[in-house]
Amino acid sequence: MSDKPYRLAVRAVIVDDQGRCLLIRRSRACKHFVGKWEWPGGKVDEGETFDAALRREVREETGLDVQPVGVAGAIGFEMDAARMAVLCMEVKLIGGNLALSEEHDKHVWVSLVELPKWDLTDGLGELARTLAAKHRQ
Amino acid sequence: MSDKPYRLAVRAVIVDDQGRCLLIRRSRACKHFVGKWEWPGGKVDEGETFDAALRREVREETGLDVQPVGVAGAIGFEMDAARMAVLCMEVKLIGGNLALSEEHDKHVWVSLVELPKWDLTDGLGELARTLAAKHRQ
Repeated sequence: MSDKPYRLAVRAVIVDDQGRCLLIRRSRACKHFVGKWEWPGGKVDEGETFDAALRREVREETGLDVQPVGVAGAIGFEMDAARMAVLCMEVKLIGGNLALSEEHDKHVWVSLVELPKWDLTDGLGELARTLAAKHRQ
Repeated sequence: MSDKPYRLAVRAVIVDDQGRCLLIRRSRACKHFVGKWEWPGGKVDEGETFDAALRREVREETGLDVQPVGVAGAIGFEMDAARMAVLCMEVKLIGGNLALSEEHDKHVWVSLVELPKWDLTDGLGELARTLAAKHRQ
């Protein structure tokens, strides 16, 4: 078993009024998972609340302003120096204009039902299948 | 839709070497959910990391020392003044002696497969069913 410390990260499932969510593709500027798709998000800074981190990361990565409306789920994965616990929140769009940072090179709006077909970053696949199954009901 | 702020809480699924986890029952000293069962845990304080909060709350509520080993999942629920996002971590026992605080009056070790049969606090039921299904595989 690993004794690496745990760090908290957050990701935002931005759902539009047609039941689609925003996926963004990791660019060559990224150290890991280049070419994989993900929900916007990132690490929570020391002393920062998780929803401040969520709003900040989404703003930095997409130019969009969001507000959390529900808990989508959580996943874990291991990196070189730490293990990550990733809290994924369902959020609604409240403002801003879509503009990606250099960390991502493409975006797409995907039906929640279609999510499992996309090549997502580590650990997000299982949660994508859960969300797709819920949305199909 | 609610515009209440989100707060982060953590809960620990303490699993022993026989695949059982610790449930504790909320006492009459609690304002809400008296008589319901739960995993130890509570709110993350301002400026506190989620795993420091996890260790602190488990220590306060059970006298046990734990170390996170995996992400069990996350659930959301609404209270009077805030909405809670509850990150549930699988943890291992590394020390301490079981001693409940006044907030709980009984404990039991439950097979993960049997979890869904217990009367759990708000929102934990769905996650209990997911954990039971995973453990059955």
